[in-house]
Amino acid sequence: MKIIPSWKDKTLFTPGPLTTSASVKQAMLHDLGSRDQEFISLVKDVRQKLVDLGGGGEEYTAVLMQGSGTFGIEAVLSSVIPPDGKLLILINGAYGERMLKIAAVHRIPVLNYKFPENTQPDPNALERALSADPSITHVAVVHCETTTGILNHVARYGKIVQEHKLVFIVDAMSSFGAYPLDLNAAGIDFLISSSNKCIEGVPGFSFVLARKDRLAATRGFARTLSLDLLAQWEGLENDGQFRFTPPTHALLAFRQALLELEVEGGVAGRAERYRLNYELTLAGMESMSFRPFLKKEDQGYIITSFYYPTHPRFDFKDFYGRLSERGHVIYPGKLSQADCFRIGHIGRLSRADVQALLAAVAETLVEMGVDFPEKVRF
Amino acid sequence: MKIIPSWKDKTLFTPGPLTTSASVKQAMLHDLGSRDQEFISLVKDVRQKLVDLGGGGEEYTAVLMQGSGTFGIEAVLSSVIPPDGKLLILINGAYGERMLKIAAVHRIPVLNYKFPENTQPDPNALERALSADPSITHVAVVHCETTTGILNHVARYGKIVQEHKLVFIVDAMSSFGAYPLDLNAAGIDFLISSSNKCIEGVPGFSFVLARKDRLAATRGFARTLSLDLLAQWEGLENDGQFRFTPPTHALLAFRQALLELEVEGGVAGRAERYRLNYELTLAGMESMSFRPFLKKEDQGYIITSFYYPTHPRFDFKDFYGRLSERGHVIYPGKLSQADCFRIGHIGRLSRADVQALLAAVAETLVEMGVDFPEKVRF
Repeated sequence: MKIIPSWKDKTLFTPGPLTTSASVKQAMLHDLGSRDQEFISLVKDVRQKLVDLGGGGEEYTAVLMQGSGTFGIEAVLSSVIPPDGKLLILINGAYGERMLKIAAVHRIPVLNYKFPENTQPDPNALERALSADPSITHVAVVHCETTTGILNHVARYGKIVQEHKLVFIVDAMSSFGAYPLDLNAAGIDFLISSSNKCIEGVPGFSFVLARKDRLAATRGFARTLSLDLLAQWEGLENDGQFRFTPPTHALLAFRQALLELEVEGGVAGRAERYRLNYELTLAGMESMSFRPFLKKEDQGYIITSFYYPTHPRFDFKDFYGRLSERGHVIYPGKLSQADCFRIGHIGRLSRADVQALLAAVAETLVEMGVDFPEKVRF
Repeated sequence: MKIIPSWKDKTLFTPGPLTTSASVKQAMLHDLGSRDQEFISLVKDVRQKLVDLGGGGEEYTAVLMQGSGTFGIEAVLSSVIPPDGKLLILINGAYGERMLKIAAVHRIPVLNYKFPENTQPDPNALERALSADPSITHVAVVHCETTTGILNHVARYGKIVQEHKLVFIVDAMSSFGAYPLDLNAAGIDFLISSSNKCIEGVPGFSFVLARKDRLAATRGFARTLSLDLLAQWEGLENDGQFRFTPPTHALLAFRQALLELEVEGGVAGRAERYRLNYELTLAGMESMSFRPFLKKEDQGYIITSFYYPTHPRFDFKDFYGRLSERGHVIYPGKLSQADCFRIGHIGRLSRADVQALLAAVAETLVEMGVDFPEKVRF
């Protein structure tokens, strides 16, 4: 069978950069001076909308940081933990491990608590760890571990961290904007996400939602210049400007993306679309005998890991390439313990996009000679 | 007189982000998967073109780093100097001072050699300093100090640094692509510039042109995860990918910008346009009695600092605002010793843009009641 290549951009079933709307990209067709009033107003507007999305009110602020999401995570870890601090990281995937690497390079004392990749960290274990080690000052966890797609109990950990009067840091990279989250209720002091995830902007910066009093108390702790969170905040507060050149076009796209999030009905509306994408993907893939890595109760609607089929003719690289030629980009796995690939459900993806992907998966399996049941559902 | 506001984007006479071509911005109207082959090829192509631009040949490589230019500077300083190294910084402006701040936050031993902002660092002073202190291992300098627009003697310093067999780091942020530069001939081991300067792309990343053997010898020196230059290089070499989410749209714009640089006749063609912009600006401003801060022989064609007129009715904020309303964005000064503002000559600016700016300056001065000679030239 001859493959007709897609003439549109490929649809991205990835954890990001994601497929964005045409209007979000078109918002970038302007050059703004980074110190001109128009851009300063835009930044102010974007920061306020982010604080509102977190439901934090007056007690929170938003700090934008150039670079990818990891730059935001490193900005927080390297800026808010004092020299005599100690960080407990709850780990059940590659992004928890990455926080560990960041702490190591900055020589921040760490207690890491590793759980299997298919298991949410146990709140009781956190309670025991904090009670056992009073030198711990900060606790960090990933909300949705993109490694597997598992959704961790952020609010339950937050309650425990608050009871111990410690600082709680949440990597909400791939969940913020897609899962309702009340910063105060979840006891979160620092939340990190990025421009190219569920807000559906383009990559270029990360953002930190920070409890103002906690951030103000970090003077002198920063271990870098570029990623100095307090200095970045003070710059934005003092004259509304970034200390160093901001990605002006990515900011223009982000403002548009925030407007489109509102139009979709805010986080609730977006969550509903993503959840439907997820359910359709899961049903379709299961009908072709693919098995998800996680139990349903642990699985979020951000991204799903599927085991490689055991059929001898299945080869992931070939499978990926054939889907890509047809215009669908899926994502390799990142698991240490199982051969999996991933399909994302976030970004400007509709039911039609998911149906097209599933049809292409079925066609590709036939082409590769991989058997699957006749009754496929999508 | 009623001001008719400009309905186009304002023209940016700044050091960046700059005015870019419509086609550069339109290149961003696509979403690419950051781990898909199409993007991997783009990154490879861009890196090769950058190495070619530096004329370095096989001995050099290009490493792209997310974030602004300062992130690239910090990536180099925090990644390539060993724990027992010592850095000499030649300083004659704010960007030299910024390198000093970066070294300080990473506790890198520094010898700083400060010169007045209107004076190029003296090569003989460098020779004496290196002879006097054999513990110095690295030397850093800014090529074009955007603080004033002064052009420093990079190749002359490079020769001395090479004779002492030390490592030479050049911040060529606002000069690369506008001044011909042969990395080998200038003895440069690490050169840093960014996407939104004279290549005329949009902001989003910096790039480092590095001598491969010098970079390969830096294992274990990195003081951060995100800005780890060697790890970033190894990632790009191993699978062609960024370690962390890249600004895919800014990369698309940059590829287009590199093509447009070729069309303009490469660095020579671009240099000619910038030089003409500079000369027209200088003649026009001088004819209205503005005085440049630098002597002509020290001044580059990137950006020019002008003293505030001494006329009592001149107020910079008012002047800036009136020009901005008319669609022309100039830039405030950054000098420690004199009241100046700056006008940039780089970016997608034509003779017509400069003429329009000069006409607006004349009109604005009349409006403000600031006298100037009758015979203005532009």
